[in-house]
Amino acid sequence: MYIVSSRDDDELNGLIINTANQVTSSPPLVSVNISKKNLTHDHILKSKVFSISILRKDTPMNFVGKWGFKSGRQIDKFQDTNYKFAVTGAPIVMDHTIGYMDLKLVSHLDVSSHTIFVGEVVESEIINDGEPLTYNYYRDIKGGQSSKNAPTYSGWADKPKKDSEEKMKWVCGKCGYVYDPLAGDMDSDIPPYTPFSRLPSGWVCPLCKAEMDQFSKLD
Amino acid sequence: MYIVSSRDDDELNGLIINTANQVTSSPPLVSVNISKKNLTHDHILKSKVFSISILRKDTPMNFVGKWGFKSGRQIDKFQDTNYKFAVTGAPIVMDHTIGYMDLKLVSHLDVSSHTIFVGEVVESEIINDGEPLTYNYYRDIKGGQSSKNAPTYSGWADKPKKDSEEKMKWVCGKCGYVYDPLAGDMDSDIPPYTPFSRLPSGWVCPLCKAEMDQFSKLD
Repeated sequence: MYIVSSRDDDELNGLIINTANQVTSSPPLVSVNISKKNLTHDHILKSKVFSISILRKDTPMNFVGKWGFKSGRQIDKFQDTNYKFAVTGAPIVMDHTIGYMDLKLVSHLDVSSHTIFVGEVVESEIINDGEPLTYNYYRDIKGGQSSKNAPTYSGWADKPKKDSEEKMKWVCGKCGYVYDPLAGDMDSDIPPYTPFSRLPSGWVCPLCKAEMDQFSKLD
Repeated sequence: MYIVSSRDDDELNGLIINTANQVTSSPPLVSVNISKKNLTHDHILKSKVFSISILRKDTPMNFVGKWGFKSGRQIDKFQDTNYKFAVTGAPIVMDHTIGYMDLKLVSHLDVSSHTIFVGEVVESEIINDGEPLTYNYYRDIKGGQSSKNAPTYSGWADKPKKDSEEKMKWVCGKCGYVYDPLAGDMDSDIPPYTPFSRLPSGWVCPLCKAEMDQFSKLD
């Protein structure tokens, strides 16, 4: 998995993707595929530059939550993030990153809800040891989900029969905190799209630390 | 890894690729990236249909050798292969396949040496249990290489210092058979681009069964 970053003048943004492809070796071209709904999509079209940071296997889930499930229209993702500027001017996320590529846009293809961007690698560097975080590992081992804009999004992963049950909010009987599956609980590394029934057994209310049996369904 | 198949009227052909991407989920679009040198490239452009067979983890190396390292201009790859015709008319390789997709071409992008083809899935089916053969597994566990037309090809995998040594042919002292690393030995599941020094210890001359110490370098 990767963070693709770009900019619109002084506005920096980035998002997580699960796939980047080497397209040709000479010249070194790499493609990414991004939803038209994502702010980074428009940034790349405007600036014609982007970077790709390769995430390390042990990337925390709340980092994935911030970069993969929040919109740059709501929060400044680069705040509290280590980054630098690439040769092309694109920002590069350095946290939890084993290497990066800096690219200039050479071509793009409109594919209905998404755009395939093809960039030529201008610079690249390996900055850390470690294995990359694969999408398979993220889903199977870490229990992660796809965001709604991902090409691979197809509703809830396990296609639950009772969809409403899985999306149901639960309220803490002690402090009134509402657990919303669509938001998850980033402070406890619970990614968005985690139903209450799939929270890890030791999970407690992030506000008052009440245990799960203190929660009841919110109609 | 996958076999992409297409046709030009009665001429059927296919090749192995290491990457296929879900591009969007609605409509279900999938992209593949194919060298302009490959016959299948021209078949897809002409017929505007193709299929993708998902290879199983235990796919034999000589099957990979036939579909990934031979050209349909020289051999008929569909001979001695189980296949059927898809709804679109594209042939589908059924051997060593856990599932397939049948696609009609909706868009394509010229990227210098390669073309990215985007197809809409018309039909798909899971036909066998088993895990898919990943490129990582193929390279790290099976010791496979990329063909020269692959987007990921970058010369010999381990970048040997003595390039000539690695490409050197060896001749059998008993029968005169010449082992050519560029060809490998498909009968013994030795893929192309395997240097003589990396042949498995039990390997014998495919013609006369002489052992490896009977071979000498061919200048």
